[in-house]
Amino acid sequence: MARFQSFSEKSSPSQSAPRIALLRAALARLNYDGFVVPRADEHQSEYVPENAERLAWLTGFTGSAGVAVVLKDKVALVVDGRYTVQAREQTDPAIVTPVALMETSAEEWIAANLPKGATLAYDPWLHTADGFARLEKAVTKVGGKLVAVDANPVDTIWMDRPDAPQAPVRPHPLEYAGESAGDKLARIRTRLGDETCDALLVSDPHNLAWAFNLRGGDVSHTPLPLGYALIPREGRASLFFNPAKLTSEVGAVIGALADSLAPEAMGPALDALGRKGAKVRIDSATGAIALVRRIESAGGIADVGADPVGLMKAAKNSIEREGARRAHHRDGVAMAQFLAWLDREAPKGTLTEIAAVEALEAFRVGTGALKDVSFPSISGAGPNAAMPHYRVSNKSNRRIGMNEIYLIDSGGQYEDGTTDITRTIIVGEGTAEMRDRFTRVLKGVIALSQAVFPKGTSGAQLDTLARQFLWQAGFEFDHGTGHGVGSYLSVHEGPGRIAKTGTVPLEPGMILSNEPGYYKAGHFGIRIENLLLVEKRDIPGAEREMYGFETLSFTPIDHRLIEPALMSVEEIAWLDNYHATVDRLLAGEVDAQTSAWLKEATKPLGK
Amino acid sequence: MARFQSFSEKSSPSQSAPRIALLRAALARLNYDGFVVPRADEHQSEYVPENAERLAWLTGFTGSAGVAVVLKDKVALVVDGRYTVQAREQTDPAIVTPVALMETSAEEWIAANLPKGATLAYDPWLHTADGFARLEKAVTKVGGKLVAVDANPVDTIWMDRPDAPQAPVRPHPLEYAGESAGDKLARIRTRLGDETCDALLVSDPHNLAWAFNLRGGDVSHTPLPLGYALIPREGRASLFFNPAKLTSEVGAVIGALADSLAPEAMGPALDALGRKGAKVRIDSATGAIALVRRIESAGGIADVGADPVGLMKAAKNSIEREGARRAHHRDGVAMAQFLAWLDREAPKGTLTEIAAVEALEAFRVGTGALKDVSFPSISGAGPNAAMPHYRVSNKSNRRIGMNEIYLIDSGGQYEDGTTDITRTIIVGEGTAEMRDRFTRVLKGVIALSQAVFPKGTSGAQLDTLARQFLWQAGFEFDHGTGHGVGSYLSVHEGPGRIAKTGTVPLEPGMILSNEPGYYKAGHFGIRIENLLLVEKRDIPGAEREMYGFETLSFTPIDHRLIEPALMSVEEIAWLDNYHATVDRLLAGEVDAQTSAWLKEATKPLGK
Repeated sequence: MARFQSFSEKSSPSQSAPRIALLRAALARLNYDGFVVPRADEHQSEYVPENAERLAWLTGFTGSAGVAVVLKDKVALVVDGRYTVQAREQTDPAIVTPVALMETSAEEWIAANLPKGATLAYDPWLHTADGFARLEKAVTKVGGKLVAVDANPVDTIWMDRPDAPQAPVRPHPLEYAGESAGDKLARIRTRLGDETCDALLVSDPHNLAWAFNLRGGDVSHTPLPLGYALIPREGRASLFFNPAKLTSEVGAVIGALADSLAPEAMGPALDALGRKGAKVRIDSATGAIALVRRIESAGGIADVGADPVGLMKAAKNSIEREGARRAHHRDGVAMAQFLAWLDREAPKGTLTEIAAVEALEAFRVGTGALKDVSFPSISGAGPNAAMPHYRVSNKSNRRIGMNEIYLIDSGGQYEDGTTDITRTIIVGEGTAEMRDRFTRVLKGVIALSQAVFPKGTSGAQLDTLARQFLWQAGFEFDHGTGHGVGSYLSVHEGPGRIAKTGTVPLEPGMILSNEPGYYKAGHFGIRIENLLLVEKRDIPGAEREMYGFETLSFTPIDHRLIEPALMSVEEIAWLDNYHATVDRLLAGEVDAQTSAWLKEATKPLGK
Repeated sequence: MARFQSFSEKSSPSQSAPRIALLRAALARLNYDGFVVPRADEHQSEYVPENAERLAWLTGFTGSAGVAVVLKDKVALVVDGRYTVQAREQTDPAIVTPVALMETSAEEWIAANLPKGATLAYDPWLHTADGFARLEKAVTKVGGKLVAVDANPVDTIWMDRPDAPQAPVRPHPLEYAGESAGDKLARIRTRLGDETCDALLVSDPHNLAWAFNLRGGDVSHTPLPLGYALIPREGRASLFFNPAKLTSEVGAVIGALADSLAPEAMGPALDALGRKGAKVRIDSATGAIALVRRIESAGGIADVGADPVGLMKAAKNSIEREGARRAHHRDGVAMAQFLAWLDREAPKGTLTEIAAVEALEAFRVGTGALKDVSFPSISGAGPNAAMPHYRVSNKSNRRIGMNEIYLIDSGGQYEDGTTDITRTIIVGEGTAEMRDRFTRVLKGVIALSQAVFPKGTSGAQLDTLARQFLWQAGFEFDHGTGHGVGSYLSVHEGPGRIAKTGTVPLEPGMILSNEPGYYKAGHFGIRIENLLLVEKRDIPGAEREMYGFETLSFTPIDHRLIEPALMSVEEIAWLDNYHATVDRLLAGEVDAQTSAWLKEATKPLGK
């Protein structure tokens, strides 16, 4: 049994008909012709608390991104490419029409389907200022009216809606955080001065957690305390939490830095700033339009832009870097035990994707330090591995067959660091095609790992290094090469990113994934993922300040899937050196069986 | 004597004092507190006619980009990194303050220096809608007023201002254009339908030239007919030219496609469209805010966005591609003769940068097909080569010394194609440092030449391929790797670009430069440039539509500057194959002396 992951499908396509009928009745009473239901909470989080799962409750669709537009006679569910199949499977086609975002955005669908003069309602706590502007443009285009609701109508009909989560807020100790909250607040205030802001409203709980050295447990897989903070450039900061989440101990810690107030106190606090004409930075990525309105209607200036905490949080300090190395070392022990176990068990032919997830979680729990998995494991055998965002359920669960590829993408939350690693394993014997693709993916991993680049270079500029060997043979993968990773925070953390869209310059201390892949739909999938730490590089004679990557993840890469003829001498040297480090780091910390397996799994390719 | 290039400096720092005094008096009469003088004409062209050189006339600064802000008590001249030194040298420090764009934009300077309540004037024909919006934001920020002038006040005080150019407009024959203007207009109209525009106002003379298969001679180095076109989705197009530029012959050609009208007729034509409520696309890159205003004030919708002609023009058709190959072959003959001559003459120690430019131009003229050079040659010896945008003048002209690097970046305008090529030559013997840098630059050229990439890939995604080998040693160059090139049009043509900013997907038929470099200020500079043609690539087993590059430029790369130990076997094979092609293409078309030189210059490195 997995402690941190579940494989049951709680939703059913049949639930949507009665619920949408109820919602329509509620909308009719309010004289609304339609309502927008995004998969979002008040903080635009990736993982939302259960009480914010309105989209899943209403439509049956449980994906992590999507938006429903409920009109009198039709319901569109707009989802991105990851979720088109899932949206069809989880919803009732008589009620809900899945719409592919690539072809039609929610705004385009509204512009094409909202009757002229109709009133579309939205919850101003679930849309950012940008999102609202796009909605408004679409509605105005067809001569409609966009109206903010006072209370979300889904909540009024959702009888057994869970309460807001009330997990206790805990201090994140200095031995892991590496910088006191007081020092962080001072840095934030300097930045507010640089940007001529009078105050910062922290709407992103990740940023709140970082700034105040707090962690919580309000959502799955990321230790977030849901709440808001208001940091004036001068004067005391305020934190807005449900008081039930604060023990007197943590209350005292917070008290040294800020006033701890109930959520209801935030509106009046914004009003007070507004009345003084203050310019308040609202995070463009997570700040609700409701916040913007509140400040503006009190006479203040809502300065919608990047929360400066995002970039500060991304550049890990030396204590966090040390913690990340420790966490990855520990996680590597669990991964090695798991892979050794997998090599023993899988050939028997009875192992399932879920059993593998359970075993891996158990090995991580066995480290004695696991707080949570950092996301639900992607555990796919054969054709299931070809779905980059596959999530195994009791229904989809598959036996790992002989001569099949098995892909496992997983990670752990440890107090000293967050991990994320993918390995692709062959059970039995792979084909020449598999080895060719695996080797091209691996060459991409190596090229990115070895990249050296000047200060100011963005992830977008490095992304191609990981793709070039696939391109040479006419292949490509349809996801970014890497995402930022938090420090005992979200496994998906901005703003650094190794992808076409990653235009933020990389800075020393950023942790990023390096995970090119190859997917042959219906057949097999390959992804190899290590985490990288951006570091300064001293190059003799260098004329610029140069950066490079330190690899953090140490787990064997399956050499049975490598085609040595495709590898250069330098690439083989990199791999052999990597494997030597894996063995050196892990051999002494695993059982004898795993240790023997490690020896074999890390033997030099060069021989 | 060069026919197409001049080396004299017409401007002088001393000219600005009396002229700015006159301008200030004119502004005072109009009750303006300041005026913005951009280096721009009504079409935002790179090369502007002499009568639009207001910035040079007023300040002495002759660079191709910059903007002066003239206030009552100070004048800022904001220029980019290429021109900071030149701006200082060409202007009077008592009158004009050069400002580095990297540090302070014109808008930032205005926000910091315009007195509260002051009125800043601007010429609405010399600013785009975006440029105006930025200006307005800056002026509003400090409580100032931004006012459009009716007539440019510089023109009222510039007594000997040249007339607008009246070079004859000529048809660009189908044997070079490859597609009739009628077919092009039909394609443009389809695109206008796709984008729900009622009409397109063509403000970019390059796009006008392409769409109507016309060429002209109103500016240097690019065969542009300055003028506008209005292409309604339905009904006849109109061209707005000075009637003096049209012979009856070309009038008849145009007459088959469009009404040929005087420039004064454009305003009323826009008014007529506006009164019908038409949505008119205005090119965001070149359309003046005056055009936007005219349409809007007549009741129409000014749809500011990309002129769809830009992308159509960039993807050369098969006739243009054939023409490009011919033009490059011809240009290669001139380049080989020049480089052979240089190798004979330069070691004598008396050759100057200007003499080299004159010789190269003469070799190009000798092809019998040169219409113009495609830009003023960059001809730099020793430290002058370290300035990427160096332009030799009688004042800066330098003897090419022994054991010095000489860099020549030049190109020709031929009716069948536009060329642009850079070669870096060692006269005498280079240092190990020069060879190291040259080889790293060359490796970048080769990597980009060999790139294979899926449809949808932008130049931004390929840029790093050309930089990686410099980065590995701690070096970098501060310009893009490549720009688009026109077909007997501008040598700098958008929207494709191989640079951080090149986000437009590359399409088959686009011609782009491949020109990484290395510059050691005060010592030497290196750049190697070939033009590349984007082509479809058939790769057996490919799962995506793949593209690659055909190299167009064939001219020896100086192997005396190559450090073979830094080259991989594959890179040496590429170079040897390239040189074999150079020799095969050119040897039979040059004199015996050059042919012997070619043999030596193209001998395999592999041996």
